[in-house]
Amino acid sequence: MSGRPRVGLIGCGRIGQVHLRNLLAHPEKCEFAALVDSNRGSIETIASAYRLDRASTDVALIFDDPTIDAVVIASSTETHAAYIEAAAGSGKSAFTEKPIALDLDSTDRALAAVERAGTRLQVGFQRRFDSGYAQAREAIESGELGAVEMIRDAMRDPSPPPKEYLAKSGGLFRDMSIHNFDCVRWLKGEDPVEVFAVGSALTSDDVRDVDDIDTSIVTMRFADGSLACIENSRRSGFGYDVRTEIFGSNGALMVGDSRETPVRRYDRLGVHEDHQFFFLERFAGAYEAEMVSFLDAVATDTEVAVTGADGRTALALAEAAERSRKSGLPVPFGSPAVERAGPDSQRMTIRA
Amino acid sequence: MSGRPRVGLIGCGRIGQVHLRNLLAHPEKCEFAALVDSNRGSIETIASAYRLDRASTDVALIFDDPTIDAVVIASSTETHAAYIEAAAGSGKSAFTEKPIALDLDSTDRALAAVERAGTRLQVGFQRRFDSGYAQAREAIESGELGAVEMIRDAMRDPSPPPKEYLAKSGGLFRDMSIHNFDCVRWLKGEDPVEVFAVGSALTSDDVRDVDDIDTSIVTMRFADGSLACIENSRRSGFGYDVRTEIFGSNGALMVGDSRETPVRRYDRLGVHEDHQFFFLERFAGAYEAEMVSFLDAVATDTEVAVTGADGRTALALAEAAERSRKSGLPVPFGSPAVERAGPDSQRMTIRA
Amino acid sequence: MSGRPRVGLIGCGRIGQVHLRNLLAHPEKCEFAALVDSNRGSIETIASAYRLDRASTDVALIFDDPTIDAVVIASSTETHAAYIEAAAGSGKSAFTEKPIALDLDSTDRALAAVERAGTRLQVGFQRRFDSGYAQAREAIESGELGAVEMIRDAMRDPSPPPKEYLAKSGGLFRDMSIHNFDCVRWLKGEDPVEVFAVGSALTSDDVRDVDDIDTSIVTMRFADGSLACIENSRRSGFGYDVRTEIFGSNGALMVGDSRETPVRRYDRLGVHEDHQFFFLERFAGAYEAEMVSFLDAVATDTEVAVTGADGRTALALAEAAERSRKSGLPVPFGSPAVERAGPDSQRMTIRA
Amino acid sequence: MSGRPRVGLIGCGRIGQVHLRNLLAHPEKCEFAALVDSNRGSIETIASAYRLDRASTDVALIFDDPTIDAVVIASSTETHAAYIEAAAGSGKSAFTEKPIALDLDSTDRALAAVERAGTRLQVGFQRRFDSGYAQAREAIESGELGAVEMIRDAMRDPSPPPKEYLAKSGGLFRDMSIHNFDCVRWLKGEDPVEVFAVGSALTSDDVRDVDDIDTSIVTMRFADGSLACIENSRRSGFGYDVRTEIFGSNGALMVGDSRETPVRRYDRLGVHEDHQFFFLERFAGAYEAEMVSFLDAVATDTEVAVTGADGRTALALAEAAERSRKSGLPVPFGSPAVERAGPDSQRMTIRA
Repeated sequence: MSGRPRVGLIGCGRIGQVHLRNLLAHPEKCEFAALVDSNRGSIETIASAYRLDRASTDVALIFDDPTIDAVVIASSTETHAAYIEAAAGSGKSAFTEKPIALDLDSTDRALAAVERAGTRLQVGFQRRFDSGYAQAREAIESGELGAVEMIRDAMRDPSPPPKEYLAKSGGLFRDMSIHNFDCVRWLKGEDPVEVFAVGSALTSDDVRDVDDIDTSIVTMRFADGSLACIENSRRSGFGYDVRTEIFGSNGALMVGDSRETPVRRYDRLGVHEDHQFFFLERFAGAYEAEMVSFLDAVATDTEVAVTGADGRTALALAEAAERSRKSGLPVPFGSPAVERAGPDSQRMTIRA
Repeated sequence: MSGRPRVGLIGCGRIGQVHLRNLLAHPEKCEFAALVDSNRGSIETIASAYRLDRASTDVALIFDDPTIDAVVIASSTETHAAYIEAAAGSGKSAFTEKPIALDLDSTDRALAAVERAGTRLQVGFQRRFDSGYAQAREAIESGELGAVEMIRDAMRDPSPPPKEYLAKSGGLFRDMSIHNFDCVRWLKGEDPVEVFAVGSALTSDDVRDVDDIDTSIVTMRFADGSLACIENSRRSGFGYDVRTEIFGSNGALMVGDSRETPVRRYDRLGVHEDHQFFFLERFAGAYEAEMVSFLDAVATDTEVAVTGADGRTALALAEAAERSRKSGLPVPFGSPAVERAGPDSQRMTIRA
Repeated sequence: MSGRPRVGLIGCGRIGQVHLRNLLAHPEKCEFAALVDSNRGSIETIASAYRLDRASTDVALIFDDPTIDAVVIASSTETHAAYIEAAAGSGKSAFTEKPIALDLDSTDRALAAVERAGTRLQVGFQRRFDSGYAQAREAIESGELGAVEMIRDAMRDPSPPPKEYLAKSGGLFRDMSIHNFDCVRWLKGEDPVEVFAVGSALTSDDVRDVDDIDTSIVTMRFADGSLACIENSRRSGFGYDVRTEIFGSNGALMVGDSRETPVRRYDRLGVHEDHQFFFLERFAGAYEAEMVSFLDAVATDTEVAVTGADGRTALALAEAAERSRKSGLPVPFGSPAVERAGPDSQRMTIRA
Repeated sequence: MSGRPRVGLIGCGRIGQVHLRNLLAHPEKCEFAALVDSNRGSIETIASAYRLDRASTDVALIFDDPTIDAVVIASSTETHAAYIEAAAGSGKSAFTEKPIALDLDSTDRALAAVERAGTRLQVGFQRRFDSGYAQAREAIESGELGAVEMIRDAMRDPSPPPKEYLAKSGGLFRDMSIHNFDCVRWLKGEDPVEVFAVGSALTSDDVRDVDDIDTSIVTMRFADGSLACIENSRRSGFGYDVRTEIFGSNGALMVGDSRETPVRRYDRLGVHEDHQFFFLERFAGAYEAEMVSFLDAVATDTEVAVTGADGRTALALAEAAERSRKSGLPVPFGSPAVERAGPDSQRMTIRA
């Protein structure tokens, strides 16, 4: 295409509004075309606040509009795959929040639709666009760190989501650890060959009621013997905790936790700093950068930075972790039992 | 007024573009009405990039448009006072970058015009809107820190500006330390009674050529015996350095330096972090917050957070520092020799 | 006993000299009685430097001297058990560097000898006396952290030891991770019920040659569902790395890495700090505190802070990790297959 | 002399005990010969705890013993000069706590006695032996920092001393800032040409009652135009605060505040670290290093690292600051009015 893509947005909940603001803040990159949300009240509130003249509860407003080039999908998880297929069917590129779907079959169908249409699909693993993680990746690729020997990737939410969310989340590994699975394989540049997971329900009855876990450690082994460790919790007790450490033969790089403000308070009890509470604050820059990256890919018709295949492999790793946790045994990854013929010819071969 | 103010912007240089993006990013707060810049090329580039249909090299586009409620002045310093007067003359509120002017007479004329017109004038001391400085002020006002006994406010630029800028800057105290003068008096909640300044030209011949200094320490004494110290340099050798420490009877609060990313690198030489290089990065949030604050004040016809009087007193302190440095003697502040009948009835009585 | 214990020291290598200095620095706590080392040159050098008049290559100097109350064993690992037994046999209390022995049978024989003699035995898990770890333990015991849900304990040496050391070390888990096993069970206040370990030889051929590993992750599960993760490497690439994080329902506590000096350097590349390279520096205070604690226990005939049972359980955990790594399967801990009738009635029942 | 010096210690109060432990901990560097303190109870307690057989309330025990090579003077300030003279008179080298005396005349008499005797005199400016400050000095001397343009040296005590101490202290500048005066001139490698000081009594009536100040800022100008700033307070409100920042043309170096432990606590209020409360903890290593340096100078009959001339100049700067504060005017340093014919030919010419 030539010029700025015209973009529609589906979903104006918390993360949808982040995308909306980032789209509106870049008139040089796109033209905001239409907003759709299934909730009438939300649509009215947001359309009025942002002076949007085209807004509806019906996705046809976007999918039936041939002038719209791309769609950003920020609706609830169970709708992602269908909207990806609808976007592909109407020749539009799509940016979707993670995950593509909660199961590999739906994921494969969505990816096949994109493949057939020849459109673009970017998955919202925003960490890859964070300046900290970008430097980590670069330090690995440039050889600065030497051979990568171990990666530790920890993520904890400040407090568990409501029970309704938990019930539909697909479980801790698919809903939360999926970011870590993507992050580790992206940093490492390859997929593990073995996954071992332990997990427990420690934070609330809600989690036990929906037969999920809230606290987990996943150990991964790579073909070259290097190791990785993912720690997750639904409840940190102190705020949003995202810290990643990469140990190489030449040294280490740590993407650390972030402060809300550069304030330090000194009193008789010691020294006190603040701490970020929400992922939206921690990754505000990353959300903007991933959207700009998507808009650029659409405008120039080039490959997106986070492909559907990336989304699928992260989900496959989550499923492997789930199987390990339930069986109590390590699970090989990339073995025939897991391998599928993927519809996807994008950047990285899916092996699991 | 009712509804969103319509806002024009004069100046689309570095800081002007920051204000432009913040205005465009808040369609719920304002309607962007017109862009003016004296440079035709800049206007064309920016208007095209941001799809602005009303742009001109002639300020009449803004001042002659009765539908425009407010103007943001980000043009070069020597134009500020005239545009403030023009804004007042056409009944528009104004946000101006600091300083209002390089001398107190021009400042007083501009403030008198605003006073007569009954419009609003906000001065761009953005630090007050930084989350770190806001917490510092709050910790003082709430009594958390106890009695404030000493304030240390350091600011260093990464590298000196070009000679042309230096020649028109009004000197280190008026151009750079003015932020510190405002910051200290705002934090302390009162003006000092004595100012002593030393300064040197150490970083380049340019500075000496224009008879200015680039390195200075200003000591201030307050009526209650508390002290303050301002350190400035045109060249830090490492990046943008803004750190403020407040010592009270109950403890201390420090607004520290900021990192670009949350990355720490460990190697045989030690541990390495990055550091911010530009004030635009350090104060990105503050620039947005000050603009929202101004738009809210205009929309609700309430007092702005940083008044013309604040701008005038900061300039008066810069002049006192200049006199001290040149005489080698401490200069009393607030004495009859300095006192003027200010045209301003805003928040804080001008004493110098 | 009454008064200061008279203390002999066996071994004046690197760690032996640390103990020597700590014994000499506390004349109010003990009387230094005799030094023994199998190396004649070392004995002469050290005895001369420290003006020690009783020194020998023969341990009889200590074990045959009835005026000596206690012995500090800092000789090579394979001698520990025999000297513990000799100390018990001559009615002396003993402080031994870890491990008691490289296998559980030898360990059990040594503990049985101590049990029969009714003497004291303290094992050199010095971390427990570090002010940081002591605060961590206290924060857990006091309930400040709430329920402990996850512990992450990482330790990396700056560079691998020589091949000769590796060959006799007993392997990474028995030689290095043993500190982590002790630390985690001490912090948690209980033993895990399952251990899973992965490991690789990544840093040198030496490690492969002796059929050992140099990089490992051990995951542990506790009866209450809480989890722990131990990371080890023989080579950090940047210095000595000891960091422990405890996540509880109320928050987290992290014992972090340490700097050599409080210096920060700022230049155009960023901000630089130093980092400690050796465990002797990191734990200098802990080595002194553990010795004072041992001397106090001997002087007052009260229980030591780190018992032989503690040393045995840490070794049992290392063996469980070794079995897990070799089998590729999780290993239950405390099951009948592992349980033994321990000779030890000290503080904590040995279950494995 | 050949071999280890025999050393006597006068004064076993807080700082005296620090020196005692450091002397006893280095049997390879010295032989501890005798302890003197004017307080009989202290002598008995300390001599018994440390098993010292030669202790007295009479300094003759030291000065009349020809086998004693050196004396460490840690008694109260008003006795320093007399004991320095007595040491010189009996041919012994001396280490004295700062200051040599509270006035320049007594200082000059003591230095003249040392000069005549040809003995050594080291003054206890322990900061110079701190690893952080040593690196700062090295970074300046090596040129790493480029030209030094500004030094900021802040020191705050956790809480004011008792009134009796204040009354005899010589005032804030002589008692406390003297460390900063020495530090700045040592780092800079030269003396300032102008001193301006402001100060207030803010922390207690005690300070006002003895006509002293407790809070001060001293600005200093050097011949090359570079600047320095010293901040002091008798009461920080949070602990012992010693931080020094050096700004050069190539970057900056900061000797920062120190933590008691490497613990960080994370909870809903933020992140919390501890902070050191006492100078004895902060400078424990420096106190040991300065004593070893003195013992080495005595053993090898070479120049000490901190000379009597250094002690005198720091006092002269304190007097200049006092004059500035009282007159309200900057005071030139090194001018004829201040210059004296010093008896001292040691490392640095005394100019003031």
